[in-house]
Amino acid sequence: MIENVDQRSKDYSEVAKAYRPGHADYAYDAKYGFRDYRGGGRSSARETAARVAAGAVARLVIPEVRIRGYLVELGGDPIDRAVFDDSQIDANPFFCPDAAAALRWEALVDGARKSGSSLGAIIECVAEGVPPGWGAPLYAKLDSELAAAMMSINAVKGVEIGAGFGAARLTGESNADAMRPGNDGKPVFLANHAGGVAGGISTGQPVVVRVALKPTSSILTPVETIDRDGKAAEIMTKGRHDPCVGIRAAPVVEAMMALVLADQKLLHRAQCG
Amino acid sequence: MIENVDQRSKDYSEVAKAYRPGHADYAYDAKYGFRDYRGGGRSSARETAARVAAGAVARLVIPEVRIRGYLVELGGDPIDRAVFDDSQIDANPFFCPDAAAALRWEALVDGARKSGSSLGAIIECVAEGVPPGWGAPLYAKLDSELAAAMMSINAVKGVEIGAGFGAARLTGESNADAMRPGNDGKPVFLANHAGGVAGGISTGQPVVVRVALKPTSSILTPVETIDRDGKAAEIMTKGRHDPCVGIRAAPVVEAMMALVLADQKLLHRAQCG
Amino acid sequence: MIENVDQRSKDYSEVAKAYRPGHADYAYDAKYGFRDYRGGGRSSARETAARVAAGAVARLVIPEVRIRGYLVELGGDPIDRAVFDDSQIDANPFFCPDAAAALRWEALVDGARKSGSSLGAIIECVAEGVPPGWGAPLYAKLDSELAAAMMSINAVKGVEIGAGFGAARLTGESNADAMRPGNDGKPVFLANHAGGVAGGISTGQPVVVRVALKPTSSILTPVETIDRDGKAAEIMTKGRHDPCVGIRAAPVVEAMMALVLADQKLLHRAQCG
Amino acid sequence: MIENVDQRSKDYSEVAKAYRPGHADYAYDAKYGFRDYRGGGRSSARETAARVAAGAVARLVIPEVRIRGYLVELGGDPIDRAVFDDSQIDANPFFCPDAAAALRWEALVDGARKSGSSLGAIIECVAEGVPPGWGAPLYAKLDSELAAAMMSINAVKGVEIGAGFGAARLTGESNADAMRPGNDGKPVFLANHAGGVAGGISTGQPVVVRVALKPTSSILTPVETIDRDGKAAEIMTKGRHDPCVGIRAAPVVEAMMALVLADQKLLHRAQCG
Repeated sequence: MIENVDQRSKDYSEVAKAYRPGHADYAYDAKYGFRDYRGGGRSSARETAARVAAGAVARLVIPEVRIRGYLVELGGDPIDRAVFDDSQIDANPFFCPDAAAALRWEALVDGARKSGSSLGAIIECVAEGVPPGWGAPLYAKLDSELAAAMMSINAVKGVEIGAGFGAARLTGESNADAMRPGNDGKPVFLANHAGGVAGGISTGQPVVVRVALKPTSSILTPVETIDRDGKAAEIMTKGRHDPCVGIRAAPVVEAMMALVLADQKLLHRAQCG
Repeated sequence: MIENVDQRSKDYSEVAKAYRPGHADYAYDAKYGFRDYRGGGRSSARETAARVAAGAVARLVIPEVRIRGYLVELGGDPIDRAVFDDSQIDANPFFCPDAAAALRWEALVDGARKSGSSLGAIIECVAEGVPPGWGAPLYAKLDSELAAAMMSINAVKGVEIGAGFGAARLTGESNADAMRPGNDGKPVFLANHAGGVAGGISTGQPVVVRVALKPTSSILTPVETIDRDGKAAEIMTKGRHDPCVGIRAAPVVEAMMALVLADQKLLHRAQCG
Repeated sequence: MIENVDQRSKDYSEVAKAYRPGHADYAYDAKYGFRDYRGGGRSSARETAARVAAGAVARLVIPEVRIRGYLVELGGDPIDRAVFDDSQIDANPFFCPDAAAALRWEALVDGARKSGSSLGAIIECVAEGVPPGWGAPLYAKLDSELAAAMMSINAVKGVEIGAGFGAARLTGESNADAMRPGNDGKPVFLANHAGGVAGGISTGQPVVVRVALKPTSSILTPVETIDRDGKAAEIMTKGRHDPCVGIRAAPVVEAMMALVLADQKLLHRAQCG
Repeated sequence: MIENVDQRSKDYSEVAKAYRPGHADYAYDAKYGFRDYRGGGRSSARETAARVAAGAVARLVIPEVRIRGYLVELGGDPIDRAVFDDSQIDANPFFCPDAAAALRWEALVDGARKSGSSLGAIIECVAEGVPPGWGAPLYAKLDSELAAAMMSINAVKGVEIGAGFGAARLTGESNADAMRPGNDGKPVFLANHAGGVAGGISTGQPVVVRVALKPTSSILTPVETIDRDGKAAEIMTKGRHDPCVGIRAAPVVEAMMALVLADQKLLHRAQCG
């Protein structure tokens, strides 16, 4: 049980009256006939704290796997893959592997906060050490479960594996991850467009997932909306809202990766001994 | 039971010897210790015939919903949204709502076939008539289930809802779908960046999903690979392989949309009467 | 969260050394390689407190149903059905609908406690008001789910519905619940050997379930056993162990009935509107 | 796909008009608004053919387990445990381990057939070779899953494990299965009142389940009922109905035992490696 020791319910007085466009406010109310406007209730990303806790346990089940999540784009500004530095990820508050980008992002986020706006982000998560064979060809496909897990995270609007949407622009011969015999009897893959999953089953390559997070919907900029009586209104969300929820989501993405992989490892052990 | 009355097992003699890069061949064999090389066995997209059949039943459960799937990009060549014409979708073999693009795609696909290559595609699927309230805030989220369903289709490597990856590049105020009072008491949304889902629950806007399909991995162009003994080999897949599986996937995407929505309608009826 | 404010871990010093025959001690240890001997850990019937709490919520989902659980036998001494009095059930600590039997049971239980022994019991649970149609012919059968729910309660070793094991001794014509037209268009059943379920679906008759509870396995009488090292030992369980766990189980049986019926009502609403 | 090559739909002309008491007829119709009276449709025990087929596959997953199902009572006439002879089970059409009882049962069943009546039965099923540790303390309890599986078989009205309902009449010290050190380091149990399951987990003793089957509800003896319009009627079911469905159920009970154990073995392997 994680107690919220710093709630400020009065921050939500504006939200009590009208729906925040882009937020779950309206859909939740349409379904249940009520909603907890103070923080969003069950729609709040506070719920992800439990996922991160569960992910820590899941990692113990898969000690052979190393999982790393980081932002590769914030506010439309991508990192430079040429200067990717793993050691930078924990050296800035943006889980950013490109030190120069982290500096730019700091300015971007500050600007968004000052102007009452918000920004989206793209997180990449890589799991190294997954052996070939986890997953299944039809039910409990590894990629299907990863997609479900990632899309279930608050604010996520897109999920891709390996080359993802980019794969739709490649030819078959460019997208093929050619294989060569390795020294240890295992194949060496010359590329990883598959993102470590083929036909629902892990290939032994690193599992690579990217998720797109929309900009925070609670913003200080006024937006047209309606109130609970269906009348025209305008809303501006005061309080402590993050200008970029994507930053906080990196550990959640890692946790969901760990949970899916731990579950798949156990399923695989059940099936194949 | 759908009998395959036109199988040609001898087409797969090449596949018997070595793994097709990008295909499930290697991962399947790594998991189970064998594979059915004649058509791919359980990894074959033939399996999607059952999904399309099931989708037809699911549509009967949701007569209030109209589902339409179509290609918006093939081989990296996108449609022109300005000339989007619903009536064109069934007028060409590409499920393409842009007549001019359909002509260009024909040339693209012919070219790929002749050169022994293959192409990817992006399919968009829209469900109109979904009322607000289907889905749930935590488990059985509508977007999470859509992601799982779409990513489970053979060759899919990416799924996005509404603005999707594009949402990561918008500001909070641009991404917000402003609401105005409608004549029938329901809100009118001024945009649909949400793609009809917020907080895991439908908003009453059209549900919009896009999926990215990789190029067919069975190609006539030789690719480096290994054989079952781990030795270096080269593979070139003869036989009747589609130069773009994405074309065939449009009905499958529609079926998966129908299956998820039918299930969610029943779940909603159980929960909310 | 229900805190245990009265635990006495030292009562379990005997249990730490050797396995209680009839208890989960040995099986749990064989599976996991350890066990929490202080109260039984996850094998403890303390877990049923959560079921009773959940059952209270489930009852709100099925206001049309009245559920009543009571003991019909304790220590091999059955009630007299001829004097069954619903109002007696809450008038004695044995949930016993027969006042005379309750007096006898008090003596039985006192005797068992004084002699360091324990007794079993049979609980009957009746749900009135279940309309015809809840359940399904194949998956999620009402009787199958009731059996699973009841058998999952600690110490339960048998479950029967309606005439139960007695039905195996009847002829087809005796076991048939003849139907006559009722005044309200619904059938009147002339008997209830079915216990309200036929072919996995409720018939509109009261749903009647009986469960058998074994005698408490933690007893003060010494029993032969082995210790964790596999050596011969003798065990005698001190502490506050109930001489008849069956008495405490009546609310748990009611809760499980409520949980299954609430779930089936929602499933039925999903399926049949 | 198992084709029914010997259906006789005209046998069901009586059933078309009115509901058979004790059969799923009425409940199915009340739920769905229609029913397939020719054989019972989805309520037919023909469905169990698929279970037996699946059970044959499940047995391949648990080669260490030997499963044996047999009738211990028919029409209220029990076997004599003192002359139990395993080799007799396949030597008579009743799966009866007592040759003398088999002769008596033959007369009983003939008599029931001639008089247009039917009889119930009790089947016992024993699984030897199940190691300690299969199952779980809370979810997926072995005994709960066995109860669900058995109660899902057509005509079953009761399930008990080990001493079952008899355990409710024993004292704690009589019901305890005392343990002694065995030669191989494993305990030797001096009794098996537990039926091989304690706290939801297998103990290493044989798993013993008994199920009660009601007499066939389709009988030639006229019974009072109502027709689809709710009017009083009388029904007498012609056609090829078994006077004792319990006889045919023995292989089904074995199959369900195999299915549950195979599933639990895989779950255990997932959990405990």
